[in-house]
Formats: sequence, structure tokens, C-alpha cells
Amino acid sequence: MAEPLAPGVSADRMANALERFRKIVGSEWVFTGEKVVSYHDPYPISNDDTRYKAHAAVAPAATEQVQEIVKVASEFGVPLWPVSRGKNFAYGGAAPIVSGSVVGDLNRMNRILEVNEKFGYALVEPGVSYFDLYDHIRGRGLKLWLDVPDPGWGSVMGNALDHGVGYTPYGDHFMMQCGMEVVLANGEVVRTGMGAMPGNNTWQLFKYGFGPYVDGIFSQSNFGIVTKMGIWLMPEPTGYRPYLITFPREEDIEQVVEIVRPLRLNNVIQNAATIRSLVLDAAISATRSQYYPGDGPIPDSVAKAIMADQEIGMWNFCGALYGPPPITDALWTVMRDSFAKVPGAKFYFPEDRKRRPDILIHRAETMKGIPKLTEFNFLNWAGGGGHVGFSPVSPTTGEDAIKQYRMVSGRVREYGFDYMGLMAVGFRELHHVTVIVYDRTDPKQRQRLDELFNRLVQEAAAEGYGEYRTHIHYMDSIAGTYSWNDNALIKMHQTIKDALDPKGILAPGKSGIWPRHMRHGDKA
Amino acid sequence: MAEPLAPGVSADRMANALERFRKIVGSEWVFTGEKVVSYHDPYPISNDDTRYKAHAAVAPAATEQVQEIVKVASEFGVPLWPVSRGKNFAYGGAAPIVSGSVVGDLNRMNRILEVNEKFGYALVEPGVSYFDLYDHIRGRGLKLWLDVPDPGWGSVMGNALDHGVGYTPYGDHFMMQCGMEVVLANGEVVRTGMGAMPGNNTWQLFKYGFGPYVDGIFSQSNFGIVTKMGIWLMPEPTGYRPYLITFPREEDIEQVVEIVRPLRLNNVIQNAATIRSLVLDAAISATRSQYYPGDGPIPDSVAKAIMADQEIGMWNFCGALYGPPPITDALWTVMRDSFAKVPGAKFYFPEDRKRRPDILIHRAETMKGIPKLTEFNFLNWAGGGGHVGFSPVSPTTGEDAIKQYRMVSGRVREYGFDYMGLMAVGFRELHHVTVIVYDRTDPKQRQRLDELFNRLVQEAAAEGYGEYRTHIHYMDSIAGTYSWNDNALIKMHQTIKDALDPKGILAPGKSGIWPRHMRHGDKA
Repeated sequence: MAEPLAPGVSADRMANALERFRKIVGSEWVFTGEKVVSYHDPYPISNDDTRYKAHAAVAPAATEQVQEIVKVASEFGVPLWPVSRGKNFAYGGAAPIVSGSVVGDLNRMNRILEVNEKFGYALVEPGVSYFDLYDHIRGRGLKLWLDVPDPGWGSVMGNALDHGVGYTPYGDHFMMQCGMEVVLANGEVVRTGMGAMPGNNTWQLFKYGFGPYVDGIFSQSNFGIVTKMGIWLMPEPTGYRPYLITFPREEDIEQVVEIVRPLRLNNVIQNAATIRSLVLDAAISATRSQYYPGDGPIPDSVAKAIMADQEIGMWNFCGALYGPPPITDALWTVMRDSFAKVPGAKFYFPEDRKRRPDILIHRAETMKGIPKLTEFNFLNWAGGGGHVGFSPVSPTTGEDAIKQYRMVSGRVREYGFDYMGLMAVGFRELHHVTVIVYDRTDPKQRQRLDELFNRLVQEAAAEGYGEYRTHIHYMDSIAGTYSWNDNALIKMHQTIKDALDPKGILAPGKSGIWPRHMRHGDKA
Repeated sequence: MAEPLAPGVSADRMANALERFRKIVGSEWVFTGEKVVSYHDPYPISNDDTRYKAHAAVAPAATEQVQEIVKVASEFGVPLWPVSRGKNFAYGGAAPIVSGSVVGDLNRMNRILEVNEKFGYALVEPGVSYFDLYDHIRGRGLKLWLDVPDPGWGSVMGNALDHGVGYTPYGDHFMMQCGMEVVLANGEVVRTGMGAMPGNNTWQLFKYGFGPYVDGIFSQSNFGIVTKMGIWLMPEPTGYRPYLITFPREEDIEQVVEIVRPLRLNNVIQNAATIRSLVLDAAISATRSQYYPGDGPIPDSVAKAIMADQEIGMWNFCGALYGPPPITDALWTVMRDSFAKVPGAKFYFPEDRKRRPDILIHRAETMKGIPKLTEFNFLNWAGGGGHVGFSPVSPTTGEDAIKQYRMVSGRVREYGFDYMGLMAVGFRELHHVTVIVYDRTDPKQRQRLDELFNRLVQEAAAEGYGEYRTHIHYMDSIAGTYSWNDNALIKMHQTIKDALDPKGILAPGKSGIWPRHMRHGDKA
């Protein structure tokens, strides 16, 4: 198959741009032909094979090369789709929205520029993975903990920029971001916050600098290419106590979330804890066929068998306490008294768990910032290996939790999938993430998934729930639900886009933000 | 004196614009002539009386009127200087940078739209003061605490937008901001975050929404007029234990800050605590003449007399513990053991303080979010009543603290003022705020202050320290110190400014951001 060309970019023009890219990075770092396949969406949803296909990729080694690449892309009008590590497979991987884009693959920029134990921060380039940073910290024996999301191979920077979350008290990654270096579409490099002061000593210590605090506009956006980012790291606590509390009934989620809200607000729940559904947890260490040979969602009797076998609940609340024993003891007393109100609640520490593998043993590592890929065992649950996340934000109330659960799980099962969901506990809201695992080789299942997903988005929006993040295939439709006052916010995004990137070369379509020349008519 | 006119705005044009403003808000809400005096800088520094003088003020009652006003200002090219409450007297009050601007006085928009106890937040308009919100919460008996800065009459919104800080665990006000409504220069209204979803239920619960997180660009900027803002409020803790630790020697600041850093990073210091200098604390309850009749900085012997009389130290660390006794007891043990290493350190709880008024008794209220104006007693220290804050950001190290202290206090004393400083403990940095009290009626002292301040800015920048906030008179010079890569960040601000406000009517010059037509030549 010939590589696609972006709208308005001729084969000649693209060839000339690639030639210039080769001069910048060396010809071995411009990828075309078969090598572009690795930039395809690993879990495609659309059955239109022409979508989300890069024409080529270019891999710069340094900020200066990013600047040159951007200038060439601008000169030739070639859309550039920057990715940090491109490993966010449930959301499109490294694939661009506009077919014919050139992926700006920042994997080679993988320097850990600084890890500061005294202040608890790292300054990293886009290509640094959680594994890389973890190994570096361990190698130097520093008393610092990472906060890691499920994909340990992901980019520390990319995850924060995508508003990703982890499981320690530093679980809100963008909140822990401090200081950026950004290449703009005109090739200029900007440093934000205190980084804008030559010779400053607080770039990774103080977020706001002087004047507008701009870092946020480079998250989930296409306004610039972030080439360095500071991230705060947690000092190793003097004590650590992970726990698991299981609840036996579907409807318990209502009571559980009512208990969670004040505990989280009062910081008794200290970390970004999660409440996970039966199948999501069971899938860490088992496959569906071990329990049930049939098609469609598993019946109740099978659910009960899984609960008994794995010593888990219909919902499983997994968190951790951090600090010296007098403090964690006091917190645990409050926790235990609060959750004991749920009939059938069971409490576990790691020493109480005998089965292997076990979800608490597994998450005890995640909640202390050890990067892994174990969570993705759920891909083997039903086979077929594709997955996508539907991630609406919900108020932390029992009423919303059970309503969300019923809405989403009902539809998911109606379309023939198992419900695999978690509610990640934010400060005042839940990220209700439903993982839908599907057979990516089956066009009919893809079609069914697509219908389901679009329905979920619209039904959630009708009830006031919006997604915080999504697969490239749904960026337009989700952006479309943030339409208050005749799409005023999207229009403002477009105004900023046109000002910072008048040629519209950076990641057109990202988060529903299109450059002027692609705003009407055929977009992709 | 005739009211000044902004560059390029004729008297006729201004008169027409005012006439239109009167039609929008009612003629009683457009202020001219003598009534404009209340919008002057209460503590002017410049001896050029033509500077920072508004032509008029217009006070809208609702977002819709703000939209109409902005459209008229745009049509007539009249610069509009929006203020929330305009009570930030050390930074210029309500005065505009460009003389002849019309102040957009948002005091009338003082509705508390919602206070939610369950989730701990308020949604407020710009005119809501800390006193207003506190009274509302008390009146309804809600178990929520505010976080208040020193000026209790200030705007809850305005303070957060200016990156202000308070003294509870919620001390970083912008970090606690969640969701905005903003009127753009074109008259459009935007809601940010989840507010962009019609019928949403998480506008004040989740910050990021979908796509770029834009709220920060409306802080310390002139990109829009914020008309509603969400602010997170702290649930009333189950216990509260304020404390004061005094240190006898100037040079103790080095050791104290080295102790503070790990305690803050590990959340043993739970709040935005402060380390205050002798005179700043003494001035809460005394005047200079009680201790010393002479001119110039007070001598050492007098400092010792003040310490003995008020039972305070050369430095005074004031913080609080929040939570149930088992937790605060454990934290206090760590605190006490840590600070006992400083020779001569003394530890106090409120019951240990007998003198009245007393700084711990006073701050015990501030650190639980009771708004006051007591802190400004320092204005009476030497008389003359003017004050300005010099506020560089410093890494939390002993080395930086003592270097900062020596640099700033040395210069301040060299210019004949007493050093009144505090180091506010952020997560990883100190706000080193030096209050300089001067006689605002004395042109020579103003001149001296101005020379001092400019020197402080330049000397701080040469060592890598940048200010986080400033008086309108110093916005250009401080913005000029954030000049990395040929002023790349400022240029980006200008690009965004020109896109969002092409006529350049909103707060020209704020934070050093000028619209295109004022960027060269005479600015004010």
C-alpha cells in the first residue's frame, strides 16, 4: 500500500520535505514504507483502513532538531503528529488523526536531565519512560518514588500532558508537572514558569513564574511540542501500608462511594485509590475461558465463582497508607470503621493474601510507584487483544456512581462485552474508566464497539458526564460535547491555534482542535 | 485636574464610550471626576502624578453587562482595566497601568453562587470578598474553612488569579481554583474545564475538562475578564493545633530553612507556614517609636529589647497542625525533634502566650481561615502608611535563604528602611516577601524606594531569583527579567494577546503584556 498523503500535500512536496528532514536528523531517522507500520494504531476501531495512517516518521535527537523539523513542516505545509513514546495503545498509540501526517517520534530524546533528591523532582525529555526513570532512580539509590500509570513503558511527559493518573498521593500527574520547554510552530523555543528567567534556580520548584501560567495549554493540545518537562517526585515515605477492601454486591458501589468522598476530602484516603469491578481484577490473573466457556457477558453464577476463587469482591477498593506507623495506624482505624458499615466488606493487607498471582500483591507495587505492564493481562481475558477506554468524569457520590455503573455496564453488556470498569478516586471526582476489550481482527466486533462507544459518549453527555481523555477516533465527537454557549471554548482553542500555528501543521485534529484550513469539509 | 485620556483616544470618543457605558449599566454606575479618585493607586511610588490614573470607571452588575462593555470598549478603542475588588493596595489597588483607561470595577458582581459543603467548594463572582464568603459560610453553619491571605477585604477570585497565597493546607489559591467563566475581548463568554459541557455536574469538581487546560492563561494576565470562578474549600478538620517556634539569631534562618524543606516535602508541615522576621511580627502589636526614637534601621540592641518584650525571635516560624490528635501528636513530635536542633529555639502553643495582642493568637485565626486586616498593623510601624512588596521566589535551602536575606535586608537598610520580611513555605520553594513601608507623602522617600526596588529586582535576577507578583509600577521591569531566549515567553504572550484581544483593550501592560499598538514607543 502506498503511504497516504495529507489533504493538499502532493507527493513531490512530501518527498522534498522528507529529504529536508533527512538532512536534519540523518536519513536513518526518517522512516517510510514498511517501517511506518509501527506507527499505526495498534487497536484500530474504524473499519476504514485509510484512516489514521502516517505517511512517514521523523525522529529528532534534540530540541534544535525539533525546531528545524517544525520549520520545514511549516514551509511545506506538512502536518506533523508529535508523540512522546507513542505507547498509549488504548488511545491510538502513535497514529495521527490526519492520514498522511508525518509522526514526530520523540523516542530518541530520552535524556533524564536531572533527578534531584533534595527537592524531589526530575527534568526529563519526551522519550523517557517510567521504566527508564525508575531504573535511574534505583541505580543511584535515591529515596524518591515515582507515580506510575498502568503502562510502565509509557512516557513520563506524555502521560502528564495527556492528564494521566497514577496510584500514589502524586497520582494527578499534571498537578505534579513543573516547568516546560516547548517548541512552537514557528520554530521558537519557549521555557515556561521560572524557566523564562536566565540562570534561574527554581524552574522545577515553582510552577507559576510571572504573568500568565501557560503550561496547561500545552496539555491535550496541539499548540506546541513539549521537549522538556519537570515532574515532582514523592520522597520515600517512612512507612507504607497497602490494603484491599472487597465488597460482595454490585449495588455496594453506591454506599462505597458515599464513604469514599469524605475520606478522600479529609485525606484519610491519601492516594489516588481505585475501586475496580470484578472482571477487571479477575483478568489480572485469569482468563475468561477458565471460568466460562459461553459467549456474551458472564452470568451471575460465574461471577460468584470467580469471587470465591480469587477472594475478591464484585467491587474491590485498593489503596495505601503512607507515613510512619502512628499516622497510618490512626488513618487505618478511621478507614476500617467507615467501610465496615458495608455488609460483607472484607479487609486485607498483603500478608493476608495467599493466592498467586494476586491483585493486592500486584498493586502493592504499583501504589509505590514501581512501573509494570501487568495490568494489561486483561487483554487476554477474552482474547483478540484490542482495547479502548471510555472515561467519563463523575462527581464522587453514590448516586452518580451507581447511575454511571448502570448506564455504562448495561450498554456494554447489551453490546456483548464484559464490563471491566474502575472508578479512580480523584480529589472531588471519580474517573470512571471502562475498558472494553474486543477482537481487533473482527470487523463486525469493531463496528459493534464503535456503535457502543458513540452511544456511551452521547448518553453520558446527556446526563452531564464528560470524558477527560480519549482515543483519536473519538476526539471530535467528545470535543463536540463540550459545546456550551455555541462551542465558545472550542472557538477560543481555535483562535489560539491559529495564532500559535497559523499554517496548522501541529497535530491537526488533536482534542478536536482543527487548524483553519481543515476546519470545514473533509478533515481526515 | 482633568481626567487623562489614553493614547489615541480623543475626548469626544471617550465621552461617547462613556455614554454607551451608561446605557448598559445605568448612569449611576459610571464614575467620573472626583469619584475616580478612589481608583487611584493608594500607595503611589512614582513621583510622576500623571501615571496610573483612570479616566473613569464602569461597574457592571452581571456577566451580560461585562460582555456589552467589552464590545463598546472594543468599538471605541478604549482601554479597560478590570479589577475584582481592587483592594490589593501594595500592588497598585484598582489603578490601571495606562492612564486614561476605564476601570472595569467588578465589585457589584458579588454573588456567592454556590457553596457546597459535601464537595468543599464555592462558586463566586469577582466582587465576593473573603469577609463575604466567610460570613456566608458561618451564617449557614457549614463545616468548611476558607484559606485567606492577609487582606480579608480582598476578592477571593482576584487573589487566586494573582497567584496569591494563604496559610492553611489550601494556601496555594490558584492550585485550589476549579472552573471559570471568562468574558473574552470579543464579548464572547467561555466556560472552562467541565463548564464547557452543557448540563455538566463537575464544573467545580474536576479542573481539566477535555483538551487544553486553559485556566492558567487568565491568571496574572490580560487575556480575558473572569466573571465566575470555582474555589475548593477545606473540610473543617477534626482537630487544629497552631504553633509558634522562635529562633534568636539572624543567621538561624539558614538552619531553619534546611529543617523546613524535608518537613514540608513530607507533609509534616501541613500548611503554607511562614517564617517571619522580627520587625514584621513586632509591628503587629507595636510601633517603632515605642522602642526606638532614632532614624534609619533599628540597631541590634533595640532588636534584642523587642524580642524580650514580645517573646518573639529574630525569626518566628508559625504553622499549624490539622487533624485528629493521634495524627497531630505524631507530627508534632517530629517537628519538635527537628527544630530543637536550632540552639535557643523556643516552642509555643496558644496557651503559652500571655501577652495581648500576640502574633500566635492572631495567626491562630488566620491559619484557620478567618479573614482579618490585622496584619496591616505594620503600616503604623514607622508611619507614612505606604507599603510595597518585593517578592522573589527562592529554592527552599538554607543557603538561598540566608543569601536572599542578606542581599535584600542589606539593601533595604542601606536605603534607610527597616527589613520586614517573611518566607512563605511553598511545596518546594519559598516566597520571600519583603514589605517596605514608606512615607507615601514624601517625594524623596518615594524616589529612594523606587531606586531601591529597581536595584532589588536587578540584583535578584542576576542571582536567578524572580518575582512571582508585583506592583503595577514594576510589571515591565520584572517581566523583562523573564527574558530567556530573546524574550521567547513574552513574545508568545503577545501572540496570544493579539489573537484574543486584537484591539488591545483589556488591561494593556498587565504583567508586561502590551497589545500590538502599544508595544513600541510611549506606553503609558
